[in-house]
Amino acid sequence: MTTFVIAQGGGPTAVINQTLAGAVLEIRKRHKGARVLGARFGVRGIRDGDYVDLSAVPEDELRLVAATPSAALGSTRDKPDAAYCAQVLAGLRKEGADAFIYIGGNDTSGTQEILAEASGGSIAFVHAPKTIDNDLVENDHTPGFISAADFVAGAFLSVDLDFRALPGVYVGIVMGRNAGFLTAASAAWRLDDESGPHLVYVPERAFSVPRFIDDVRATLDRHKRCIVAVSEGVTTADGKPLVESLVSPDRLERDAHGNLKLSGGDLGMAFEQALRDGLPGKRARVDTLGYMPRGNVATISPVDAAEAFQAGSYAVDLAARGGGSVALQFDGEKTVMRRVPLGDVAGKTRHMPDDFLEPKANRLSRKGMAYLERLVPKKFKVGKPFV
Amino acid sequence: MTTFVIAQGGGPTAVINQTLAGAVLEIRKRHKGARVLGARFGVRGIRDGDYVDLSAVPEDELRLVAATPSAALGSTRDKPDAAYCAQVLAGLRKEGADAFIYIGGNDTSGTQEILAEASGGSIAFVHAPKTIDNDLVENDHTPGFISAADFVAGAFLSVDLDFRALPGVYVGIVMGRNAGFLTAASAAWRLDDESGPHLVYVPERAFSVPRFIDDVRATLDRHKRCIVAVSEGVTTADGKPLVESLVSPDRLERDAHGNLKLSGGDLGMAFEQALRDGLPGKRARVDTLGYMPRGNVATISPVDAAEAFQAGSYAVDLAARGGGSVALQFDGEKTVMRRVPLGDVAGKTRHMPDDFLEPKANRLSRKGMAYLERLVPKKFKVGKPFV
Repeated sequence: MTTFVIAQGGGPTAVINQTLAGAVLEIRKRHKGARVLGARFGVRGIRDGDYVDLSAVPEDELRLVAATPSAALGSTRDKPDAAYCAQVLAGLRKEGADAFIYIGGNDTSGTQEILAEASGGSIAFVHAPKTIDNDLVENDHTPGFISAADFVAGAFLSVDLDFRALPGVYVGIVMGRNAGFLTAASAAWRLDDESGPHLVYVPERAFSVPRFIDDVRATLDRHKRCIVAVSEGVTTADGKPLVESLVSPDRLERDAHGNLKLSGGDLGMAFEQALRDGLPGKRARVDTLGYMPRGNVATISPVDAAEAFQAGSYAVDLAARGGGSVALQFDGEKTVMRRVPLGDVAGKTRHMPDDFLEPKANRLSRKGMAYLERLVPKKFKVGKPFV
Repeated sequence: MTTFVIAQGGGPTAVINQTLAGAVLEIRKRHKGARVLGARFGVRGIRDGDYVDLSAVPEDELRLVAATPSAALGSTRDKPDAAYCAQVLAGLRKEGADAFIYIGGNDTSGTQEILAEASGGSIAFVHAPKTIDNDLVENDHTPGFISAADFVAGAFLSVDLDFRALPGVYVGIVMGRNAGFLTAASAAWRLDDESGPHLVYVPERAFSVPRFIDDVRATLDRHKRCIVAVSEGVTTADGKPLVESLVSPDRLERDAHGNLKLSGGDLGMAFEQALRDGLPGKRARVDTLGYMPRGNVATISPVDAAEAFQAGSYAVDLAARGGGSVALQFDGEKTVMRRVPLGDVAGKTRHMPDDFLEPKANRLSRKGMAYLERLVPKKFKVGKPFV
């Protein structure tokens, strides 16, 4: 193999450049003299012939970029249709690409599957996983999740301590369209059983505003404060995103994949309104964590970084084997890289298992906590406040 | 001196417990056998006789609490009137207090001044500073600011990298009622002159929505992305908080000090609306950082922690000297602790100097950057993206 094309798609993570560096350095090792082209802004760069030549970038420079959050090649939310795909394939052929490694999530693996089918087998299409949402099937967890989870765990530990000092209700809205893993990570570093988050709402369980108010009231009665973690993608019983029930239709915004824009002020304001109406006069604060956890330089996990790098190396292995998707699986002791067919991952969403929450309460179950304790172990030693 | 009372007031910080521990350990060193009472929830604990006896808490336990964000004794926003003050004084006398050390910001120092005047001099009243807002006069900077600033600097570096990959407009709303220091810290770790935050809006300069939209448009034309840091307390030309112009009066909320609740979904939503109207169709995201920077366990600065501890020790020195306010000043080389009269700090607000911003643009000036470089030096080495 003499020519590789690499790109990054979807929402960036704190360690997505580790995967890029892992792939480039593995290519150098296994395919001496091969050309490595980084496409700018995902498949758009291939379509437009916009590349950065990574073949000769010095290793120390690559390692520095690897330690840098977000997608160094740029990213895209483009969802290629048949015509766009034909342009991308033409672009890959023009460069004489033997393999195309695309680092991304669900939508990105879907793009790779379509391209692989359209190409007729002359090019190896590899998907290397990344997503803070942790929502790829066939994976125990995904590169990018642990770093984002570290942020969320630390943020909620800290906010819980803040609200011990100045009691009230706190709602933190966390990214997570279809899967609640990142929101559940808010509970990973709880100080003790009395600590927040006291309520965790994920997209996998129907959300009801009256039930929410009841839950908050009961928590306040018991703990004097109530810390709530909510996924931006929580849905009402009719299966619609909560934001769709609360926000007027002319303000809703969708991307090329049909994904509704979920976070931001609208949802935050809707929660504030619900708390004002349901618990009048009660101190309540709502934050949209939004982009804070996604690629935060302050909470890059060394484990996450190492796994992301390894996923990049392994992607080069899959290129030599004709393509596929890199999956991070758990063998009962450690994380291992395995090959799965693109079609097994593409377009599918892994949900947080329902038994990660208690059956009748919005709290993490033992099983859910065990998963978090394995992946998001405590990083800071803190003492117990005097109140 | 045989009996000390200590309390914490106002918004917690990441290092406010360092000041508590610094004071307790200094009392043990200088006043062997003295009783140290920690009042729960600020002056309210003194009024209600609600104390935790800190005299015998083991040093290792105190040091662990010191490393824990938020106020371990609890805090309060109560603003004592004459009757409340009389109750607090009675409470202090009942315990035979020789000194009352109150750790807090503007409002807290105001409370100490009132108590000192009412007491007639029989008790030493000491104010030990803390505030992430950095808005205490007589101080070069305040304990709590550097840790919060580290969070904000890292968050905006990270978001700028994110929006390089997926271009658009980002607005991050940062705590800061009257002073723009924390919002300005968003610029501390800028990668280069092209990097965000491209626009910084602070309470010290009048905010205009049309001007804001023009600024954003011009930045997009130049950089394809626009990262904005806004203080929650920005005011319009008539001197009113922006949130007051944008949000209907029945939703505005004030605390006992008359402080308007500034952050949260309402202001975020108002910015989203302004961007939708002013730049229709443009990708724009708004986050309220809210409580994230205030006492975040992940970004506790060792320098901040050490200074906060030292401020606690020094407060004990001031108790022996009859009281006063601890001020962190800069002698041209290093931070030094000095005594200033309570009345010099109480009820006053230190604003960010206007020349920390460029005269005609919402960007940090050289002078502003020099201040940040001294206090908030870069903590992470990152590489330059390929886009």
